[in-house]
Amino acid sequence: MTKRQEQILEIVRREGPITGERIAERLHLTRATLRPDLTVLTMAGFLDARPRVGYFYVGKPMGEVIADQLRKMKVKDYKSVPVVVSEGTSVYDAIVTMFLEDVGTLFVVRDQAVLAGVVSRKDLLKVAIGAQDVREVPVGLAMTRMPNIIVVTPEENVYEAATKLIDYQIDALPVVRVMDAHNKQLEVVGRFTKTTIARIFVELGSGRDI
Amino acid sequence: MTKRQEQILEIVRREGPITGERIAERLHLTRATLRPDLTVLTMAGFLDARPRVGYFYVGKPMGEVIADQLRKMKVKDYKSVPVVVSEGTSVYDAIVTMFLEDVGTLFVVRDQAVLAGVVSRKDLLKVAIGAQDVREVPVGLAMTRMPNIIVVTPEENVYEAATKLIDYQIDALPVVRVMDAHNKQLEVVGRFTKTTIARIFVELGSGRDI
Repeated sequence: MTKRQEQILEIVRREGPITGERIAERLHLTRATLRPDLTVLTMAGFLDARPRVGYFYVGKPMGEVIADQLRKMKVKDYKSVPVVVSEGTSVYDAIVTMFLEDVGTLFVVRDQAVLAGVVSRKDLLKVAIGAQDVREVPVGLAMTRMPNIIVVTPEENVYEAATKLIDYQIDALPVVRVMDAHNKQLEVVGRFTKTTIARIFVELGSGRDI
Repeated sequence: MTKRQEQILEIVRREGPITGERIAERLHLTRATLRPDLTVLTMAGFLDARPRVGYFYVGKPMGEVIADQLRKMKVKDYKSVPVVVSEGTSVYDAIVTMFLEDVGTLFVVRDQAVLAGVVSRKDLLKVAIGAQDVREVPVGLAMTRMPNIIVVTPEENVYEAATKLIDYQIDALPVVRVMDAHNKQLEVVGRFTKTTIARIFVELGSGRDI
């Protein structure tokens, strides 16, 4: 779309229905100069025109175009590797693991990969300024425990994942697969965080084709 | 754009230059049925055609459309209120302030608003598991200090801000205004974090017009 066509769309979007004469006036152009642009925009489906009414906007709003795109992007294609500890790990060792692995959230697991809890920097800070010895307290006492954990599946889209992070005011989601529907056991297969979203955001903003 | 027009664009994007006959074949349609769609797509600037060559794709890729949008969104319109403490505040009180205000990063200021440092949950956790008493250590000893602080201005766009968060691996940026160019003093006027980005992401994904 040319610069001028964009200006026309903007005018019609804000002020439509509006006559061709009025649009020409607003752009300090003649009606004849404008005619090819109006034809293109109408044929492409962005504008419609009615006799004695003028042009009005019918194109897909930019917001919808972007929303469609975000819904096409799956969690499985953007998740990172989960960092896990066992329930008996001390709060001190959990903090050290966070520093070594450079993550803000750890997933607590049973039997290698079964999700038991989630522990954040905030949870660990709370224990660290408390009266107890961080080398004695197990991470199991500081974590959020199943079934109170908000999770996401690999097939959900990144918009759904972002919505959970915002709605529940958390920094990270375990990406899980249901191992055992009966016992509601979940296997941790990834990590989806606010950092993941910032990374997607930068990728979208870089203008590379997606 | 109709479903069929989208299919045509997709074929031309992948396989172009491609003749009208070939496109018709791929869609199991006649050349005549396809002609109006090809005309619309060509006039709208998505496709171009050359004799004996066929149709090729010239439309703006989706990636660029989104990138343009993110560059139009300014930090000043999305920043949140900064939470500040003074340099003499104890690490303990800084942690308590973080919990009370529910933020992950505090800005340390002199004279009410002059940026002196930035302190994160990670910085405070490091002190909290060390040998020193968190009630005795001032936050000034735990913070990142000027001029090593990465900042953003209200006029920068949200893509630039996101890029800084990712490139420097930090969670939050102070939004600043230059108070005194000579002394390089910066006034803290806001906070721009990975949470801000997640919130913008959800807003974009909701499909509301922007």
